[in-house]
Amino acid sequence: MSSSYSNYTNSPCAACKFLRRKCTSHCVFAPYFPPEEPLKFANVHRIFGASNVSKILQEVAPHQREDAVNSLAYEAEARLKDPVYGCVGAISVLQREVLRLQRELEETNADLMRCASYLGGEAASAYGGRRG
Amino acid sequence: MSSSYSNYTNSPCAACKFLRRKCTSHCVFAPYFPPEEPLKFANVHRIFGASNVSKILQEVAPHQREDAVNSLAYEAEARLKDPVYGCVGAISVLQREVLRLQRELEETNADLMRCASYLGGEAASAYGGRRG
Repeated sequence: MSSSYSNYTNSPCAACKFLRRKCTSHCVFAPYFPPEEPLKFANVHRIFGASNVSKILQEVAPHQREDAVNSLAYEAEARLKDPVYGCVGAISVLQREVLRLQRELEETNADLMRCASYLGGEAASAYGGRRG
Repeated sequence: MSSSYSNYTNSPCAACKFLRRKCTSHCVFAPYFPPEEPLKFANVHRIFGASNVSKILQEVAPHQREDAVNSLAYEAEARLKDPVYGCVGAISVLQREVLRLQRELEETNADLMRCASYLGGEAASAYGGRRG
């Protein structure tokens, strides 16, 4: 686990190293920002600010903090790559892909229904069509 | 347009009102945070911090700033609703939906191919199957 690594080596965590402060055993960042991943903290700090990240971590139950940090790191990296849309760009792409697949599935189902109707009642019920 | 509204009424923009500072004609926030939408700025400030938002706006071309603010506002709202996953939660849901639709489309195409093969060569080529 990252926290034990950090305590084990006595290295300050990536956050405390970046912020040039002493990393204590109560450091809220240490379990999630190990010293060997300096960019993870730098990105999150650049986009959200260390104080906002610390506030979010304190709002979240301890067993969910790792997921929270990872989703913040994902958002921060996406925003640094694309300052205009950030990870909202990925949401738009995925929404368009869902619409395209739904349309294609509807058309394929309609083709299947037409094809099955040629084969008569028995076959038509066997190829009963899937719901989009 | 929000900027002209703000200048027109001489009200400070939502950002300057929140930060209790004078809203000048050079205010980087005014065009995108009209006074009638105070929550938009409050959310973005709470998650990213005004200074990070201002930095992002200055990195982005003026014609893209409105999109940048709207995507930041979307991300901020999502993070306030779900502090653990924020809008990354929506990305996971959409990714699962894309996979589900792709699988369903593949199965429907396979059904269509089987059905068309009963009808013989001519019909089979008419129902040539769609690509997932």
